[in-house]
Amino acid sequence: MKQWEENFRKVVPYVPGEQPNQPGMIKLNTNENPYPPSPNVKKAMDEFDMDKLRLYPDISSTILVEALGETYGLNKDQIFVGVGSDDVLATAFLTFFNGTEPILFPDISYSFYEVWAQLYHIPYVTPSLMEDFTIKREDYYRKNGGIVIANPNAPTSLSLGIDAIKDILEHNKESVVIIDEAYVDFGGESSLPLLKDYENLLIVQTFSKSYSMAGIRIGYAFGAPSLIKAMNDVKYSYNSYTMNQPSLYYGTEAVKDTKYHKETLEKIMKTRTWVAESLKNLGFKVIPSSANFLFVSHEEVPAEKIYEELRAKKIYIRHFKKPRIDNYLRITIGTDREMEVFLAAITEAI
Amino acid sequence: MKQWEENFRKVVPYVPGEQPNQPGMIKLNTNENPYPPSPNVKKAMDEFDMDKLRLYPDISSTILVEALGETYGLNKDQIFVGVGSDDVLATAFLTFFNGTEPILFPDISYSFYEVWAQLYHIPYVTPSLMEDFTIKREDYYRKNGGIVIANPNAPTSLSLGIDAIKDILEHNKESVVIIDEAYVDFGGESSLPLLKDYENLLIVQTFSKSYSMAGIRIGYAFGAPSLIKAMNDVKYSYNSYTMNQPSLYYGTEAVKDTKYHKETLEKIMKTRTWVAESLKNLGFKVIPSSANFLFVSHEEVPAEKIYEELRAKKIYIRHFKKPRIDNYLRITIGTDREMEVFLAAITEAI
Repeated sequence: MKQWEENFRKVVPYVPGEQPNQPGMIKLNTNENPYPPSPNVKKAMDEFDMDKLRLYPDISSTILVEALGETYGLNKDQIFVGVGSDDVLATAFLTFFNGTEPILFPDISYSFYEVWAQLYHIPYVTPSLMEDFTIKREDYYRKNGGIVIANPNAPTSLSLGIDAIKDILEHNKESVVIIDEAYVDFGGESSLPLLKDYENLLIVQTFSKSYSMAGIRIGYAFGAPSLIKAMNDVKYSYNSYTMNQPSLYYGTEAVKDTKYHKETLEKIMKTRTWVAESLKNLGFKVIPSSANFLFVSHEEVPAEKIYEELRAKKIYIRHFKKPRIDNYLRITIGTDREMEVFLAAITEAI
Repeated sequence: MKQWEENFRKVVPYVPGEQPNQPGMIKLNTNENPYPPSPNVKKAMDEFDMDKLRLYPDISSTILVEALGETYGLNKDQIFVGVGSDDVLATAFLTFFNGTEPILFPDISYSFYEVWAQLYHIPYVTPSLMEDFTIKREDYYRKNGGIVIANPNAPTSLSLGIDAIKDILEHNKESVVIIDEAYVDFGGESSLPLLKDYENLLIVQTFSKSYSMAGIRIGYAFGAPSLIKAMNDVKYSYNSYTMNQPSLYYGTEAVKDTKYHKETLEKIMKTRTWVAESLKNLGFKVIPSSANFLFVSHEEVPAEKIYEELRAKKIYIRHFKKPRIDNYLRITIGTDREMEVFLAAITEAI
């Protein structure tokens, strides 16, 4: 070991998820949207003023924040934007969770919550989901330094009603409660109506799923002006210019086209309904999904075997080798055509 | 104060630099390039496959890394890319500076070095530049946890020769030495030839200045594979997908067009020569510049007065209210036409 390597930060090297790129493949493993973004995004690209590339972006991301405000009925000072919801969530962890009490999030949820807690030395406790993967609210009545709940949850696809969120907020008037709504547009219930009553509520959403723009890296948060200001203070204090000009201009057009957004969502939910039914008919247990993916387990055939057989046919789905969920598969909803091919292959596999 | 606010991270709220946006203004305050990016970037935009926006970007930024490798004669495993050089430098601080000895950087340099050191609880010492703003190499012979030198330095515009960098490396075989070459293309001397001999050398550059793409947010670092791997391990461990698809595709075209890059640099250096001469003739002391800006001080007229008078005419330059440099002005090199207007205005101001 070289002397300077003694001072390297020790991390568990993350192994990026498989991003296959093969002709003819069907990619149902990272919850991307099978439909392209709004045609207005292409228009924004065609009309993009090249001089914008020469200049530093607007640090406040004004055009994008205003478009979000218009679409979601909020003021500019209630909106934070970042480089994907990972960036938004990491900034929220860094900003809000500096106390000594542990923060709380479910044992089965988005894997990065644990990563950021460790990165920023935030104490945390992970209450277990119930056997059916639902959240036990009472686990979140204890003293804590903050709460993070993905709703709908990943990878389970299960959603909580707004009443349950309200109940959790009622029991937590002393800490910041983050609701990660990455998948909420696919049939979940947003906590947006609760914002006016709870100044400690932060709602995080993303362009990666319902807006068909995983490639643009935009996430955003809604919250009381005091929360948003605190996040911006932290962000500006160490890396001010993170949202590039294309993301500001393309993202703005995507969020303005509410009609296209709704149409895309409806197509995906319709596909999800018949795929879920078909899988049930094949003997799969299918968790009721409010997301753009299904979380399923077969009564007889092991998940890993199915995963491998589909993989051999260049159909990529997700299998987590983790306790409690290692016999489940996560399947992104693709186009109707893709799902037909997928169903034929999975029928053969079992 | 709300209870949860007690756990907010305490930061000194950063006040973003002035980003004026007025018709007819001349903007010489943030060292942007006055010329547009390579025409091939526009072509990449026109030919951009919209399907890319739907998909997560390649986590390894392969096309961009390969283009950089081709242009700079390096292998893929010697190159790291990030969201602007701020992101690259912050990642380097987080990755390499976890020891107990203080890191070293000059008292007058890029202001964010101090910010990141504080953010990550890295001890630091800032040796004073000499009276003429040159670096005293002997200050960097002491035991340390790492070294960071901007070359050319900002805001002084002064550059160090490769021999001086080599000397500093020879005295520092136990810690990582970062050379921040944001401005090196404008007449500085890159430390790139030293890479093969020093495994503890990290060179950081950016698309924001010489590539005319401050709006795309791309920075990059060159170093031994062991350094690059350590940075990627840290980056992947907490925020994997930061480089969006437009930045990968547009950036690749910019870095491939070496001819256009060189032509733009030559135009700026030519403009710099006559602006520097003109300012000297007006009684300014002009620090010899290897950057796309000049750092100047007038014998009689206070810097702040000149700054305010130009500002009233919508000509924006930079004035730092900091010890030792508060009678200096930093002036970005614009187009010939912009600099003519600037010179007429500054002649009136003094």
